[in-house]
Amino acid sequence: MPQFSGVIPPVVTPRHADGSIDTNSLKNVTKHLLDGGVSGLFVLGSSAEVPYMTDAERGLVVSTIAEANAGSVPLIVGANEQTTNRVIEEAKKVIDLGADAIVVTSMYYAIGNVAETETHFRAVHAAVDKPIFAYDVPVRTHFKLPVDLLVRLGRDGVITGVKDSSGDDVGFRQLLLATKDNPELSIFTGHEVVVDGALLGGAHGVVPGLGNVDPAGYRRLFDAAQAGDWAGASREQDRLADVFEIVFTPNGRVSGGAAGLGAFKTALQVMGVIESNTMSVPMPALNDSETAAIKVILERNGLV
Amino acid sequence: MPQFSGVIPPVVTPRHADGSIDTNSLKNVTKHLLDGGVSGLFVLGSSAEVPYMTDAERGLVVSTIAEANAGSVPLIVGANEQTTNRVIEEAKKVIDLGADAIVVTSMYYAIGNVAETETHFRAVHAAVDKPIFAYDVPVRTHFKLPVDLLVRLGRDGVITGVKDSSGDDVGFRQLLLATKDNPELSIFTGHEVVVDGALLGGAHGVVPGLGNVDPAGYRRLFDAAQAGDWAGASREQDRLADVFEIVFTPNGRVSGGAAGLGAFKTALQVMGVIESNTMSVPMPALNDSETAAIKVILERNGLV
Amino acid sequence: MPQFSGVIPPVVTPRHADGSIDTNSLKNVTKHLLDGGVSGLFVLGSSAEVPYMTDAERGLVVSTIAEANAGSVPLIVGANEQTTNRVIEEAKKVIDLGADAIVVTSMYYAIGNVAETETHFRAVHAAVDKPIFAYDVPVRTHFKLPVDLLVRLGRDGVITGVKDSSGDDVGFRQLLLATKDNPELSIFTGHEVVVDGALLGGAHGVVPGLGNVDPAGYRRLFDAAQAGDWAGASREQDRLADVFEIVFTPNGRVSGGAAGLGAFKTALQVMGVIESNTMSVPMPALNDSETAAIKVILERNGLV
Amino acid sequence: MPQFSGVIPPVVTPRHADGSIDTNSLKNVTKHLLDGGVSGLFVLGSSAEVPYMTDAERGLVVSTIAEANAGSVPLIVGANEQTTNRVIEEAKKVIDLGADAIVVTSMYYAIGNVAETETHFRAVHAAVDKPIFAYDVPVRTHFKLPVDLLVRLGRDGVITGVKDSSGDDVGFRQLLLATKDNPELSIFTGHEVVVDGALLGGAHGVVPGLGNVDPAGYRRLFDAAQAGDWAGASREQDRLADVFEIVFTPNGRVSGGAAGLGAFKTALQVMGVIESNTMSVPMPALNDSETAAIKVILERNGLV
Repeated sequence: MPQFSGVIPPVVTPRHADGSIDTNSLKNVTKHLLDGGVSGLFVLGSSAEVPYMTDAERGLVVSTIAEANAGSVPLIVGANEQTTNRVIEEAKKVIDLGADAIVVTSMYYAIGNVAETETHFRAVHAAVDKPIFAYDVPVRTHFKLPVDLLVRLGRDGVITGVKDSSGDDVGFRQLLLATKDNPELSIFTGHEVVVDGALLGGAHGVVPGLGNVDPAGYRRLFDAAQAGDWAGASREQDRLADVFEIVFTPNGRVSGGAAGLGAFKTALQVMGVIESNTMSVPMPALNDSETAAIKVILERNGLV
Repeated sequence: MPQFSGVIPPVVTPRHADGSIDTNSLKNVTKHLLDGGVSGLFVLGSSAEVPYMTDAERGLVVSTIAEANAGSVPLIVGANEQTTNRVIEEAKKVIDLGADAIVVTSMYYAIGNVAETETHFRAVHAAVDKPIFAYDVPVRTHFKLPVDLLVRLGRDGVITGVKDSSGDDVGFRQLLLATKDNPELSIFTGHEVVVDGALLGGAHGVVPGLGNVDPAGYRRLFDAAQAGDWAGASREQDRLADVFEIVFTPNGRVSGGAAGLGAFKTALQVMGVIESNTMSVPMPALNDSETAAIKVILERNGLV
Repeated sequence: MPQFSGVIPPVVTPRHADGSIDTNSLKNVTKHLLDGGVSGLFVLGSSAEVPYMTDAERGLVVSTIAEANAGSVPLIVGANEQTTNRVIEEAKKVIDLGADAIVVTSMYYAIGNVAETETHFRAVHAAVDKPIFAYDVPVRTHFKLPVDLLVRLGRDGVITGVKDSSGDDVGFRQLLLATKDNPELSIFTGHEVVVDGALLGGAHGVVPGLGNVDPAGYRRLFDAAQAGDWAGASREQDRLADVFEIVFTPNGRVSGGAAGLGAFKTALQVMGVIESNTMSVPMPALNDSETAAIKVILERNGLV
Repeated sequence: MPQFSGVIPPVVTPRHADGSIDTNSLKNVTKHLLDGGVSGLFVLGSSAEVPYMTDAERGLVVSTIAEANAGSVPLIVGANEQTTNRVIEEAKKVIDLGADAIVVTSMYYAIGNVAETETHFRAVHAAVDKPIFAYDVPVRTHFKLPVDLLVRLGRDGVITGVKDSSGDDVGFRQLLLATKDNPELSIFTGHEVVVDGALLGGAHGVVPGLGNVDPAGYRRLFDAAQAGDWAGASREQDRLADVFEIVFTPNGRVSGGAAGLGAFKTALQVMGVIESNTMSVPMPALNDSETAAIKVILERNGLV
């Protein structure tokens, strides 16, 4: 296994009902994840609502998690900005606050191409002295990172890993195959319900938003896969896929962003880990009936 | 296992150099597939270049395969047309020619919605007396069949199975979970390189275009999975993923359609199964250097 | 002005309540359009619900319109099929039935590229002896015809005109500029509410679905533009844009296809031109409250 | 005419060859635009490469333009950030630096919906005390602002105007029609080559990136339209469309972003207005042969 592997959930960002960051709840989430057996924390990811945070809030979140983690596991922290020079400034800030590695997407809002994207990653690598994960999330950036670019960046030591949230399972398998001879590269899947197949294909880790709710379940799935117990891994995956049904409770009432992240926060509130399921402006929180539906799903899966 | 399961390749359509259908080569392909241990034949699929065939050619292809198959395995045949009434007419034709089941996509060129799509499938079911597979191929139809629609159509007996070429692995797992209590429904994946994961998640079969080239490989993969030998299944999948590299040899020189289907036909030509790698108008055939590159890949995988 | 110009509406296809083609109503629509001063008829277009028609229905529609038209104006007829050889077969059929020119889209369901698309148009041109209009409708074909391809096909005499329904007004202006030196080429817009601007930019004609409802309005708009009365053209366009509000009356209740075409047919029913607003399977017809809303819009524009 | 109208180019951002902001050249561009007769300056727009600028660079650009403008015309300044609270912080900064109005897009990277987008605009309006332009640029944000939302925000005084770069000419005309009774609302088009048609339809202004190169041409076009000389407006538009050909000189060599903005900067360099055509990291500058091709286009249009 490469340096980074295992279950590395993207930590959600609890807010008080008035919208301010709830640092106590954030510490509780961090402890909940560490207790669940995670091997790293993915900080300031999409699940953290990072695009909705002000600069001050981003700093507060990183330092709060760093304090609660106290060096237990590596912190892989998003440097989420539109373009290269902005990413570099953001990366330096989060490294100062304790990041062990940074996460970089392709540019967005900007309209780039493959060559500019390669320059982008190489320029960030040249400017910072921590390992870089390429985060492939075309549903947000509207640019798919090509497999051959990722292979090249990995071979040249520009990136230390890939978090794949592309929804392109064929490309993911090709990436795994094309990097089998690179023992330093960590390939993570960000998709909650196909982790067993991803691990069977050779993935080194998983960054599941749902891991906020059930970190121990993902740890069991990962351990089963490591032990070669694939039937057990598949059973655990099926159970987690049922837990994942919480994200569909709003059934179109709110945006896709508010539904998924809102469900994770609402579940954590029902479980008593965080105080409020308040979302970042302008996203509404899930309501009472959605909360009740989520409770039913959590109960049938033994999580409350 | 439901009625339909296993390895069911979408049979390619060989053409002579002058563009006419090469029925002898088509019989050879059919024999090659049956010898490889397939459990069904998927006829007039996208891999058959069905949208490029005239009505007369479609009839000739179905009757030629039916004759060569001689009842050995079920024929699942595409009724590929833009909308409901045209699909029904096409379905009746292919059933007369020997189809054991038909394959129906959502409408295309037409701009529909979920309700019209449901009416579409129900109307086809009401008009024909053979089992129907829903073929989910949004890269061609530009309409993703929703999981809940497929679950509903399966529960009501409108469809007997699903061929998923959606590229949406999350939706595929949800479909598998949501139909676990329906023992009659066959869920197939159409993606060549993630079959091990699909079977681990509970899929009943696979419809791999690459299965034209290496049907025995897919049969070994399927058998390993059936036997619970997941590590073996994954090794076979990795080998097949390497064979799949043949589709990337044109590297942008031709369209995506001409590259993938052209690679399958070129491989079969190299292997001596078919006479020519000629494509349907207006697609160009792969050239000599691409053929040479494909031969290298086939050789390193023991296929020539 | 080139050979084809002016107002050339895409004729809708009336159906009886039982779904069969209503040839009497179709003759009435044809007469209504000729009385409105149109300079051509666009037959078997998207507004005719052509993808929903069986082969027999397509033939019946062309021959019925040809009979009602009796040579008054040119018939520009769609040869709507997935790929080249199927288009050629369809083109020959409609030419036998009276087409003065045919309309060809890029391929669909098939996944092509620019080179294949060029081969496609050139092959159709080589096989038929009537003028060809390229129909650019990426919302249906999911392939935008590039400006430079259209310019090249026009210069080489492969196409005699373009019907643009691409929604790309910038590309449309570039096409007009790039073909200014080609007096034979007819550039038509298919967009109902920006005809004044298209004509100001140099377009030669318009193919408005809404022209079924108000052919005389489009004729007045075209005549004002020809006379250099641009303020008058703009006023008529604004009035027609208000009539176009009929297509929004379903407000999401039905698919985009059923809403737009359904509104045209419902308006014609309200106006007494056709018997029923029945749609092709599987599209629902507009309902009573939508019909009432359409009547209000027609009344305030003096159309009933 | 409402408060804001006329020709309001989005000012480009010159950089020295070493990548730093070239404030002298930026002052020259500002003077060039004022001399050309513009009625406002659009600052920190996409044409300014705003997503590529650091926070410090954004501040420097606004204050430099404000100083060079010295109150001559209104400054409409982009507050370009991913989500609501970040936009509000950015808006306050640019207002402190001299913005007379701010420009706000829908959220990006974030995945929102119509309701969240409405909350977004209303929250920004509540937090800042300057007029707001909604900037509709789905090619960057991947979210089209619906016409009815814009009408509602305009009617409620949340926005004072719209800059449309949506490429949806039908929606643009509907917006013009639906807001005809709102004399305070300014509707601008951002598309360089269809300004004559937009003005004929009732638009109040234009924000052309190409206006950096030829502000006087756009002023003549606007004045001709104001005077009802539509044939003159169309001729000037055709000339400007030919100047716009400069953006196609790279012909795929660089990204779409680098081609368009690079062409404007290269033209200004050829014209002696700015020192260098250097682009923001990671975009390459246009090369010598592209520069030569641009010079030819400028010469045949009398711009050098």
